[in-house]
Amino acid sequence: MRIALDAMGTDLAPEPEILGALEALRSLERDVEIVLVGDEAVVRPAVLKHGPISERMSIHHAPDRVTADDPPASVIRKKPDSSIVVGLKMHQQGEVDAFVSAGSTGAIMATSLFTLRPLPGVARPAIGTLLPTIGSPCLLIDAGANVDCKPQHLVQFAHLGNAYVRDTMGLSEPRVALLNIGEEPGKGSEVIAETYELLSKEPGLRFVGNVEGRDIIQDICDVVVCDGFVGNVLLKFYESVAAVIVGMLRKQLAGRDEGALFEDVFRVLDYSEHGGAPLLGVGGVSIICHGGSSPKAIRNALGVAARAVRSDMVKHSARDVTAGAR
Amino acid sequence: MRIALDAMGTDLAPEPEILGALEALRSLERDVEIVLVGDEAVVRPAVLKHGPISERMSIHHAPDRVTADDPPASVIRKKPDSSIVVGLKMHQQGEVDAFVSAGSTGAIMATSLFTLRPLPGVARPAIGTLLPTIGSPCLLIDAGANVDCKPQHLVQFAHLGNAYVRDTMGLSEPRVALLNIGEEPGKGSEVIAETYELLSKEPGLRFVGNVEGRDIIQDICDVVVCDGFVGNVLLKFYESVAAVIVGMLRKQLAGRDEGALFEDVFRVLDYSEHGGAPLLGVGGVSIICHGGSSPKAIRNALGVAARAVRSDMVKHSARDVTAGAR
Repeated sequence: MRIALDAMGTDLAPEPEILGALEALRSLERDVEIVLVGDEAVVRPAVLKHGPISERMSIHHAPDRVTADDPPASVIRKKPDSSIVVGLKMHQQGEVDAFVSAGSTGAIMATSLFTLRPLPGVARPAIGTLLPTIGSPCLLIDAGANVDCKPQHLVQFAHLGNAYVRDTMGLSEPRVALLNIGEEPGKGSEVIAETYELLSKEPGLRFVGNVEGRDIIQDICDVVVCDGFVGNVLLKFYESVAAVIVGMLRKQLAGRDEGALFEDVFRVLDYSEHGGAPLLGVGGVSIICHGGSSPKAIRNALGVAARAVRSDMVKHSARDVTAGAR
Repeated sequence: MRIALDAMGTDLAPEPEILGALEALRSLERDVEIVLVGDEAVVRPAVLKHGPISERMSIHHAPDRVTADDPPASVIRKKPDSSIVVGLKMHQQGEVDAFVSAGSTGAIMATSLFTLRPLPGVARPAIGTLLPTIGSPCLLIDAGANVDCKPQHLVQFAHLGNAYVRDTMGLSEPRVALLNIGEEPGKGSEVIAETYELLSKEPGLRFVGNVEGRDIIQDICDVVVCDGFVGNVLLKFYESVAAVIVGMLRKQLAGRDEGALFEDVFRVLDYSEHGGAPLLGVGGVSIICHGGSSPKAIRNALGVAARAVRSDMVKHSARDVTAGAR
């Protein structure tokens, strides 16, 4: 299995990518190879600093880099030599089995849609993001790809999230919930109330009903379905709250030997643990990481990509959505 | 000024209400009187435990109590002797100037709409909630009263939130923002993009543009406008995350003398500090508190109610909405 890793994605690229890739090679199965995609003149010396290049690692030259100022939809035309476009085209052409990048979310999404294409029957690919909870993490889908959603789209998100969690996290029957403002059927907007009706009759899903904002952290579902507006607001809000709290705690704990005491707190607030947000519903494995990703976050994203490839997640997603197609 | 306080609202009623009222009488201006509304047989002895009853405090008998099982819309008919209905009718008839309750949010909202009525020109009264930030708190409106909103409704929420923050928090020109998934104009759903257009031309508001979920905690706006679905999800999510983190920290700090070290953290996570969520856009002051409110939260809600009355917030809201009416 070969995974393309955008070497120019993080704010501190290529160092976090290289360290994350090296860690992944140590921790993942021996058949995983990593292709670093980026400017060879930058990437090769940076890799060599850490010793001779492993035979399971290679560098694929892509001289250009997407910036936050590039309009996402035009990247594929205007920056054909960027690491994002080159890496995703390699995936499109079957040269690699997955693509991981911490570059511009919009550019990765737009270019993935263009190269990997939506799966047959999938109207709207969506971004899944694992949120930490007091127990096992919960996949929030959609975390921002689709703003105005119809009930049918939300039902597809449920299948996409279900297949992803089942295949990459090893849950045989994930608990799938609908994000709402009350537990009873009929609550929420017209779209959400109709989605509830559809989900409760949908085959192939273990639908556990509505959950509220307060339930997510309590580990009462494995997949929580919402439109990309709500999901994006919630995700960004959580990340900022977590960052502020962690920053305050670390400041207080600085120079003290008590960080371990607060391990539980840090774990609940540490979204890097779960490594990357997959774009689900496209014909390939495309994982989007934070621009501020640590080596650990990159390693975890590579691990998720490997599990998605190994489990045939994409094929299962297509099957599930089509079986449930209306 | 007389404020009616539902004495049967909190989960531990009437004790938190009574303690909160006693604290409020000590800290608020001398002209503030508090009317405890509830079952006299329960409330009077509970007050007397704390000493003779102040001449600024009285008890108004209301033998019945609204429970979580009562359908909110039917409370006014089916429980006319409940503390919520009795207290709000006192307000409607001018016997008190404000109403504060930690009872069922739905029942307070429905009964407030029925008794106090929407202000002239206000299509949809909305719930405001102060969220803690790293600086001064930010009013989220709507926190759950209206699920499907049109752009005109959201513009009215902006005026209602603006008047409330200006009058009760003493900010002469509150920074009003629209919650969105990107900063640029044109971002977001159709409704939100159109709301942006309207707000940027709206007189009488200092509109600072779109903010994202990550911006709220950073204290870059004083009022953040969203529909009641997004607002409710966000609020409940925040409360649950805060509760989990605070619980974990307190557990770690138990028996240690270091709570003060983490004061900043607790402050950011403590929404009780800001005392109650007003239902804005009705012809009166109706403040909704958590069922789990502490005496401090009740005292703060009474303080907010007093400031709203003293500043003539309701009259100003009506004027602002009408001036901006489209």
